Amino acid sequence: MPALEPKIAPSILSADLARLGEEVSDVLASGADMIHFDVMDNHYVPNLTFGAPVCKALRDYGITAPIDVHLMVKPVDELIHAFIDAGASDITFHPEASEHIDRSLSLIRDAGLRCGLVFNPATPLTWLDHVMDKVDMILLMSVNPGFGGQSFIPHTMEKLRQARERIDASGRDIRLEVDGGVNADNIGEIAAAGADTFVAGSSLFKARREDDPHRYDTVIGAMRRGLGR
Amino acid sequence: MPALEPKIAPSILSADLARLGEEVSDVLASGADMIHFDVMDNHYVPNLTFGAPVCKALRDYGITAPIDVHLMVKPVDELIHAFIDAGASDITFHPEASEHIDRSLSLIRDAGLRCGLVFNPATPLTWLDHVMDKVDMILLMSVNPGFGGQSFIPHTMEKLRQARERIDASGRDIRLEVDGGVNADNIGEIAAAGADTFVAGSSLFKARREDDPHRYDTVIGAMRRGLGR
Amino acid sequence: MPALEPKIAPSILSADLARLGEEVSDVLASGADMIHFDVMDNHYVPNLTFGAPVCKALRDYGITAPIDVHLMVKPVDELIHAFIDAGASDITFHPEASEHIDRSLSLIRDAGLRCGLVFNPATPLTWLDHVMDKVDMILLMSVNPGFGGQSFIPHTMEKLRQARERIDASGRDIRLEVDGGVNADNIGEIAAAGADTFVAGSSLFKARREDDPHRYDTVIGAMRRGLGR
Amino acid sequence: MPALEPKIAPSILSADLARLGEEVSDVLASGADMIHFDVMDNHYVPNLTFGAPVCKALRDYGITAPIDVHLMVKPVDELIHAFIDAGASDITFHPEASEHIDRSLSLIRDAGLRCGLVFNPATPLTWLDHVMDKVDMILLMSVNPGFGGQSFIPHTMEKLRQARERIDASGRDIRLEVDGGVNADNIGEIAAAGADTFVAGSSLFKARREDDPHRYDTVIGAMRRGLGR
Amino acid sequence: MPALEPKIAPSILSADLARLGEEVSDVLASGADMIHFDVMDNHYVPNLTFGAPVCKALRDYGITAPIDVHLMVKPVDELIHAFIDAGASDITFHPEASEHIDRSLSLIRDAGLRCGLVFNPATPLTWLDHVMDKVDMILLMSVNPGFGGQSFIPHTMEKLRQARERIDASGRDIRLEVDGGVNADNIGEIAAAGADTFVAGSSLFKARREDDPHRYDTVIGAMRRGLGR
Amino acid sequence: MPALEPKIAPSILSADLARLGEEVSDVLASGADMIHFDVMDNHYVPNLTFGAPVCKALRDYGITAPIDVHLMVKPVDELIHAFIDAGASDITFHPEASEHIDRSLSLIRDAGLRCGLVFNPATPLTWLDHVMDKVDMILLMSVNPGFGGQSFIPHTMEKLRQARERIDASGRDIRLEVDGGVNADNIGEIAAAGADTFVAGSSLFKARREDDPHRYDTVIGAMRRGLGR
Repeated sequence: MPALEPKIAPSILSADLARLGEEVSDVLASGADMIHFDVMDNHYVPNLTFGAPVCKALRDYGITAPIDVHLMVKPVDELIHAFIDAGASDITFHPEASEHIDRSLSLIRDAGLRCGLVFNPATPLTWLDHVMDKVDMILLMSVNPGFGGQSFIPHTMEKLRQARERIDASGRDIRLEVDGGVNADNIGEIAAAGADTFVAGSSLFKARREDDPHRYDTVIGAMRRGLGR
Repeated sequence: MPALEPKIAPSILSADLARLGEEVSDVLASGADMIHFDVMDNHYVPNLTFGAPVCKALRDYGITAPIDVHLMVKPVDELIHAFIDAGASDITFHPEASEHIDRSLSLIRDAGLRCGLVFNPATPLTWLDHVMDKVDMILLMSVNPGFGGQSFIPHTMEKLRQARERIDASGRDIRLEVDGGVNADNIGEIAAAGADTFVAGSSLFKARREDDPHRYDTVIGAMRRGLGR
Repeated sequence: MPALEPKIAPSILSADLARLGEEVSDVLASGADMIHFDVMDNHYVPNLTFGAPVCKALRDYGITAPIDVHLMVKPVDELIHAFIDAGASDITFHPEASEHIDRSLSLIRDAGLRCGLVFNPATPLTWLDHVMDKVDMILLMSVNPGFGGQSFIPHTMEKLRQARERIDASGRDIRLEVDGGVNADNIGEIAAAGADTFVAGSSLFKARREDDPHRYDTVIGAMRRGLGR
Repeated sequence: MPALEPKIAPSILSADLARLGEEVSDVLASGADMIHFDVMDNHYVPNLTFGAPVCKALRDYGITAPIDVHLMVKPVDELIHAFIDAGASDITFHPEASEHIDRSLSLIRDAGLRCGLVFNPATPLTWLDHVMDKVDMILLMSVNPGFGGQSFIPHTMEKLRQARERIDASGRDIRLEVDGGVNADNIGEIAAAGADTFVAGSSLFKARREDDPHRYDTVIGAMRRGLGR
Repeated sequence: MPALEPKIAPSILSADLARLGEEVSDVLASGADMIHFDVMDNHYVPNLTFGAPVCKALRDYGITAPIDVHLMVKPVDELIHAFIDAGASDITFHPEASEHIDRSLSLIRDAGLRCGLVFNPATPLTWLDHVMDKVDMILLMSVNPGFGGQSFIPHTMEKLRQARERIDASGRDIRLEVDGGVNADNIGEIAAAGADTFVAGSSLFKARREDDPHRYDTVIGAMRRGLGR
Repeated sequence: MPALEPKIAPSILSADLARLGEEVSDVLASGADMIHFDVMDNHYVPNLTFGAPVCKALRDYGITAPIDVHLMVKPVDELIHAFIDAGASDITFHPEASEHIDRSLSLIRDAGLRCGLVFNPATPLTWLDHVMDKVDMILLMSVNPGFGGQSFIPHTMEKLRQARERIDASGRDIRLEVDGGVNADNIGEIAAAGADTFVAGSSLFKARREDDPHRYDTVIGAMRRGLGR
């Protein structure tokens, strides 16, 4: 079991984008720990979502919680600069999307942000071999990014255990995040495999209840209970 | 002088993106005719803004006014499909960004939307030679798309006149749109050169007045007066 | 009206590819003048057909008629070399697909083949401005290459007349070829607009009659009659 | 030694492409188990061969044996769809050619076909780490794909043994295929290293004997004897 | 005939690159007006020559004459910045190599340098239609850039006349430069067609005479005489 | 400790490029063993340096020492041919930059040159798994290539030890080279981790002393002493 406090990170891709400030305020008030921000460029993945101007708008709106930016773009360095300026807290990217991974990690870290690598379901963890001293987080995709309608890929459990072993061997406080198909029912098992940070998308936002104090209290509470906390 | 009714199209790139539904409702209530939607993919231009999910959110919010999508992306066909599904009304793209321009125009038109080509400041109008029977609108960029802090490029006036001649010669009701640096002071002169559709960005949204009935009444009124209407 | 003898060029893309030698022999025996060979690479167009090994197989089979290779590929120079070696007679390519058009034309011509440019429906003829002394043929696409199920684009008629004017002004014997939706019914009108070389695809191969002497005599005869010959 | 029945897969790239239906019928009648279909796009490898229309022609011709499609193309997803529609039985692709490997494998498998990854001589087997539960076959290239005139790379023997160990550890019936420089003389040794599926190209088709019952009986018989069967 | 003083611009690509400072000093002392600097990136053209560090080395060596940088690279903006920093005087690029031509021209001009467009032999002059107020020079290639062993393309004469007409119509002092196959024998005729700036490569550097005062006095003198000056 | 004689390889990127022949002669006379030649194409790395014409100029100048070419370019095969012709002795490239690594290595080796792979700081050594019988050298980047102002990345020490283990296990005389931030102070420690070939750039060329016999005797002597030789 990981030593780090578990964190729930709602992905705004599933929020109501016409009322984004309000949605983000609500999930945070309902108990979410941070915001997950999915950037797609229609090149690395077959979809285009939103970029740094939307991140900046959230900061201007008054959001102070961590904003965890997941770049599903290629190449990455230009947008790293844009998101640093826009107020991101964490930036992660895919190793296949940068030929200068160590450099891209340093760009993020040198700006005072937390950095990490994201692994597609089939991407080998060997990309971690020479950067365990540089990453603050590791994000495992449990679905293929950019494609809709997928469910949690079972092999992710084994991959989480392997990533957890690498983290424990490093002796560093590296977060292990999982994204795709996480919900209140499977979050406990996923945590048991080694994850400590949980992205929740449509399962969270679709469970909005207008009679909850902050509309997402029930669903986030269920996830917390799934974690045994 | 163009025969078509002039239209003012605020670009939401300059709106408050954390309150997008409200902003769009306000500019429409203040007299705007349509919404201009600037899609950038960080490949065709050095910036990534927002894609089809944001367009869909506006429709889900209840916006029924025309949404005029300007694709600053390369390639274009995949996103054309996405924006058709998301509720776009018009889709324009750059001729350099599609090797099958006639095909891309047909994709848009066959779905019942209005289609058009966008011309960067230096792009020759010869790209219109064989598609005047297929375009519903022509958009001339009066700044370079995707780069900040630019002012209206003076040569645009001459290019507007040339485009107007081509439209008049075609005998078709093709709209002539201009984007970049348009404001209440120069809109009259731009209309005189032949434009009938006017994108307004930061000059419009920065002129918000909380004591206006719908916050943008004053600035849009000034633009209308600039048009002599 | 063009001075050059009209030529009918069946496109083998619509032939039975499991019996290609036999099909090609049959259309030639039925009166076709040459073979049109459509090369697609799934990059310039969204389809992959066949390359130089298939061209070479036709030569090895004993086909001596001209093979007219239309490269719908990007970039073009490597495949130009491959098709020269494989026995092509003519090679045409799209101006957007080579940044060194004059060079690519010279590669073909210096090998003793005939060379030309192909124009997508929306591509301006201005690409001919500085190479009229170098091209042996001009191919106008009357559908968008690489996409199925399209019919003849009407604007092609006007574009054929413009291309014919350029050819006549040059004083050179440049062939004017048209590809897409040509059949016995419209071939006469297309010839009247200035074309002298006619690619025929599915309309020709679908009209195979087993009781014709060479299976395609009837359909090719109808096309000749459409030409008034 | 592998438990699966050995299979011989002639590569039609070396067949007479002007008589493809006949050639394929002959090799199957001579004892081949399946057809290997080499798709090159002149982007991932420096050659363009043939695509889905040729596969479909074989099905229309009446070929019912498995067609084993090896995509030497980048990207892969569009052509996966095309080959599913054209009647392919197996589809393999290179991990470097898809950024969404798990997704591409699922596309193939969800359509009811068998899927697999192909490894260039230098590509590490670590790309298998997280997909052993998803692949039905593993293809090791024993020459560099797309380049002519190469002989069997000796290190392949060691790599076959490593792949065999991974397969045996998985407990699944995954085929281990080898492509490049396989002939009757070395097939036994290659099988001993763990391969069970053998692509044969020019060595097979060049050994055609007009006095064999089906022209390839002798050469395929020699390969079977090399396998000790 | 052009009103501007003719200029001779030796291309250092043909100089002895192991003694570049000395070579440049010699050609300038022999009467050359400026240095032509050919930057190739092995992407826009099939060759890689040298970049900004070599330009800077010439400035550090003490060369103060104009350095005329011709970018045969794609994309262009990053290297424009690099050459501004390295001390370039003029920067020209190909319109096909920048999707934001007006912007790239402005980058150069705003830094106080002279800017221009380069035209491959087949590239239409229509790319000038909307930037005649922004260019300081127009460079016509009279060979295909990046390929060796070519001679002056005759059609260049006609293209020079067309460019000259555009310049004269603009009323601006735009230089008209020609590059490729220029020598003492044809320079007069080229000037008569409208050129005023002449790049000279191997014909100049191969004519080095150790007994000339500055080794290139004879050849540059012959070029001047060819110009009738 | 490695058995091979240590070698010092000054990188000419830091030399005075206007006097390159003289600089190279001086460092060799001062005791350097070979010349390191950094080729950047502004695509694989964000900088463009110099290519084969500069290498050839050094050979024409009379340099006979080994020239060790490090290709920071993508793709690699065309430039491999160019550098073979230009007189290179060794050519190394990045595994991410060639999809046919085994083929690219063979191109170099078959021409009689020494070949190798280069590893960016984060690139896993698993790329060596199947080519240890083909490489003559392994180059570990201890900074990110193409970016200025970086210092030696500490994790390189551990990576050197891992590469050394692979080399020792292979039983072959493979050189282990390191590039980035090497100087007289840390060279001993780097050698102790397993390196035997040391690229020295600005630290070497900036230490030029005009009163040294060959200007670089002092600095190269200090590096030798750091090596304990």
